[in-house]
Amino acid sequence: MDHLAHVSNLRSSQSQTQISHLALDIGGSLIKLVYFCRYDDSCRDDGDELRSQNDSLCSKSDNNQPVLEGRLHFAKFETSKINDCLDFLRSMKLCLGGLFSTVKVISGSRYISSSFGLFTSSHDGTAPPSDKIFIKATGGGAYKFADLFKEKLGVSLDKEDEMECLVTGANFLLKAVHQEAFTYLDGQKEFVQIDPNDLYPYLLVNIGSGVSMIKVDGDGKFERVSGTSLGGGTFWGLGRLLTKCKNFDELLELSHQGNNRIVDMLVGDIYGGTDYAKIGLSSTTIASSFGKAISDSKELEDYQPEDVSRSLLRMISNNIGQISYLNALRFGLKRIFFAGFFIRGHAYTMDTISVAVNFWSKGEAKAMFLRHEGFLGALGAFMSYEKQCLDGLMVHKMQQKFPISASSAGDNIYCSLSSNSDENGSIECTVYGT
Amino acid sequence: MDHLAHVSNLRSSQSQTQISHLALDIGGSLIKLVYFCRYDDSCRDDGDELRSQNDSLCSKSDNNQPVLEGRLHFAKFETSKINDCLDFLRSMKLCLGGLFSTVKVISGSRYISSSFGLFTSSHDGTAPPSDKIFIKATGGGAYKFADLFKEKLGVSLDKEDEMECLVTGANFLLKAVHQEAFTYLDGQKEFVQIDPNDLYPYLLVNIGSGVSMIKVDGDGKFERVSGTSLGGGTFWGLGRLLTKCKNFDELLELSHQGNNRIVDMLVGDIYGGTDYAKIGLSSTTIASSFGKAISDSKELEDYQPEDVSRSLLRMISNNIGQISYLNALRFGLKRIFFAGFFIRGHAYTMDTISVAVNFWSKGEAKAMFLRHEGFLGALGAFMSYEKQCLDGLMVHKMQQKFPISASSAGDNIYCSLSSNSDENGSIECTVYGT
Repeated sequence: MDHLAHVSNLRSSQSQTQISHLALDIGGSLIKLVYFCRYDDSCRDDGDELRSQNDSLCSKSDNNQPVLEGRLHFAKFETSKINDCLDFLRSMKLCLGGLFSTVKVISGSRYISSSFGLFTSSHDGTAPPSDKIFIKATGGGAYKFADLFKEKLGVSLDKEDEMECLVTGANFLLKAVHQEAFTYLDGQKEFVQIDPNDLYPYLLVNIGSGVSMIKVDGDGKFERVSGTSLGGGTFWGLGRLLTKCKNFDELLELSHQGNNRIVDMLVGDIYGGTDYAKIGLSSTTIASSFGKAISDSKELEDYQPEDVSRSLLRMISNNIGQISYLNALRFGLKRIFFAGFFIRGHAYTMDTISVAVNFWSKGEAKAMFLRHEGFLGALGAFMSYEKQCLDGLMVHKMQQKFPISASSAGDNIYCSLSSNSDENGSIECTVYGT
Repeated sequence: MDHLAHVSNLRSSQSQTQISHLALDIGGSLIKLVYFCRYDDSCRDDGDELRSQNDSLCSKSDNNQPVLEGRLHFAKFETSKINDCLDFLRSMKLCLGGLFSTVKVISGSRYISSSFGLFTSSHDGTAPPSDKIFIKATGGGAYKFADLFKEKLGVSLDKEDEMECLVTGANFLLKAVHQEAFTYLDGQKEFVQIDPNDLYPYLLVNIGSGVSMIKVDGDGKFERVSGTSLGGGTFWGLGRLLTKCKNFDELLELSHQGNNRIVDMLVGDIYGGTDYAKIGLSSTTIASSFGKAISDSKELEDYQPEDVSRSLLRMISNNIGQISYLNALRFGLKRIFFAGFFIRGHAYTMDTISVAVNFWSKGEAKAMFLRHEGFLGALGAFMSYEKQCLDGLMVHKMQQKFPISASSAGDNIYCSLSSNSDENGSIECTVYGT
C-alpha cells in the first residue's frame, strides 16, 4: 500500500466530511483505524480555530438525543510505519462529537497547526490539559506505543482488551450490518443471512500477524480457546525472505499466477501419480508443503516467486482452516467466522480456508468470512466509547438507516451498510449523543 | 548423510553378518530399510555361487521350527538418491532364510555378479524366474519405483499398505522392545514402561515428509484421523531455500545454536515487552512465526541461518504438537506417540513437541517418542512377511532373547533391544522359520 497516497486520499475525502470519534487497533504488523465522519463540512482542515456548532449535526432524535449522521470509515497503516499514522492523525480534523473543541498538538511537530477534538473534558473550545485527551485503542501496540502517542500527539491511548474488542466488533458486524458474512467456495461468494437472535455460539478466528481463536457465547461472553503462530506475519515474513516482494499485497497478488505444485510435494509425487485412495487422499492432495524444495537440483533463485507465494499461502490458509475446524469440533460450534487482515478479501485465501474446513469436517462445517474482516478490533474499541460516561458527547448507539432483513430488536447497536456502499466498505450510520 | 560412507560402512559390517529378510519403506524424502542379519558369516559377498546350508543357522526350536539368530538392522537413503539404495541392495548378499537360494541380477546391471536370495519359490539354488523374487515394501515409492526395482534389480516390490505398516511397526516396538518409548522434557529423557495389555487406544503421529495421525485401537485396528502437510519435508524444503544448508542433519544441527527470537514475533514484541496475561500468553510466547521478518530493514542475507533454522523447527514442531493434541482430545486418547524421521532423536525438536502438547493440553497430555522412530513403516513391512505363506522359509515370529519387564504373553511377536545395543539401534532377535 502506498501510504502517502492513502493518507492524501483520506485528506481529500476529509474535506467533504467531518471526522469525529476515532479508535485504533495497533497490531504486530498493522494499525487499523475506525473513525466516524459526519455528513457536514463545517470542520475544515484550517488550523486550530474553534468552530461553532452546526444544527444539522446536533439535531435531536425522537428521545431528544443529539443525532450525528455520517459514515464509519476504515484505514490501515503498517505498524513499522507508525509515523505515517501519527502524521495522518495530526493532519486530521478530529472533532469531538457535537462540541467541536479543538486541541493544538504539541510543539515540535510538523503539524503544529493542525487541530484535534477528541473527547476532552473541556467544552469551552480552548485547548484542554493534554492528559484529558484520549483515544480508544486496542492491540499490543496500545501498550507498546502509548508513550509515543503521548509524546508526539499529546493524547493518551485508552487501552481496551484485544479479545474483547474483537468479539464486540464481530458481534456488531454480524448483528447490525446487512450482507456482512458470506461463504466463498469455488469462486462463488454467497452472503449468509444471520439471525441476530440465533448467532451464538460461534468460533471467531482472527488472522492477524498471529491467529486467535475465540469461542463466542454472547455479548461480552467469550474465551480464547486456541490460536496459532502461523498467521499473516508468517506469510509475509517468510514471503519477504523467499521472494524479495516489497509488500504484503504484492506477495498476495503474485500468488494469483503461481502454481503450488512446483514447490509442494503431492501425494501423487510420492505414489507415482496415483491416489492413496484407501485413506481418501487424492494424487493432488499436498503431502508436504515445500516438500519438492528438498531437491538438490534447484536453489531458491530457480523457483518462481509466484509459485513460492502460492505454496506459502496455501500452507498457512490450510493450516488455519484445519486448526479452526478442530477447535470448532471440540466445542460443538457450527459456525466459524474468519476475519483479520491476512484475508483481505483474497479469493484464493478464502477458497483454501473453505476447502480446508470442508475437507477436514467432511462437509459438515462451513467457513464464513466478514466484509470488514480487518477492523473487528478497531470497531470493538470504537464501540467501547459507549460504555464510558464522559461529560462530553459520546457514541453510545448506532441506529440503522436502512432496513436489514434480520430483526435486531433488543440490541443497542444498530447500523446498516448502505446499499450503495463505497469501495472502502465504509458504513453509513447514525450516532446518538447521550 | 554421506551416502557412500554409509553404504561402505554397511558393506563392511555385512562381511561379519549374513543378511536375509529385507523390507523397504520408500517415502517422499527417505528410503528406510530394515534387514535381518544372522550371526553367521557363511554368506560372503563373493558372487553368485550357491551356498550350502549352515547348521547353526537352521537349528530347530522346541516346536521344531528353524531358528535364525541375529539382529535387525536399519538403514536409510534419500529418495532422490535412490540409485545409492539400489547399489547397496545389489552389493548386499541377501540370503533367503535357511535356504540360501541365490539370484543372478538381470543383465545390463553394473552388479551382474552380485547375488540375492529373496523369498523365491525355487529351492534348488538355481536362479528362479525373476517375477518370483519380491521384497516387501511400503510407502508411496513402493508404487512409484516398482518398475525401477524390476528393471534394475529384477525384483518385484510386494506392496503393503503404508498406514497398516506404520501401525504394525509401532505395535511391535511398543509391545516387544524394552525401553522403546520415552518422554522428553527440559532436556530429560525418561523411558516409559508400556504394559502391552494396556496399550490401546493411542494416537500415532508419524512425521515424515508430511504427517499422518493415526488412531490405533488394536492389532490391525486403526484409522488415519488426521494429518498435516507441514512436516519434515517442509522443514527441509523451506530450510534449504532459506539457509543453503546441504542436508537435513546439517540444518537440524544448525538450529542448536540459533535463537528464534530474532526471527519470530513474540507477544512481548507486540505488547512492548509485557505479557498478555489475561489470556495466559507470556511475553516470550511466539505470536507470529517469522513475524519479525516482515521488517523492511533486513533481507534474507542479514539473518543468521541458525536463527532461521531454529524458528522453522519450532514452528513446525509446535504446529504438529498442537494438531496432534487436538486430535487426541477429539477421540479421548491419553497417549500420543511421535515417530518418523523428522525427529531423529533431536533434543530441541522433542522438547518443542513436548512443550506444545503440554501447553495446549494444560498439562493433561504427554508426548512420547520412540527410539526406532524412523523405521515404523519398514518394520511393519518386514512383519508382513509372516502373514504370507510362501513355500520358502519366512519370518513369522520374533522371539525375545532378553527378558522385558512388561509381560507380552499372548502376542506372537517378541523381540528385545539388547541391553548393550549398538549406536545404530539394531535389535537383537531370533527369527523362526515356518
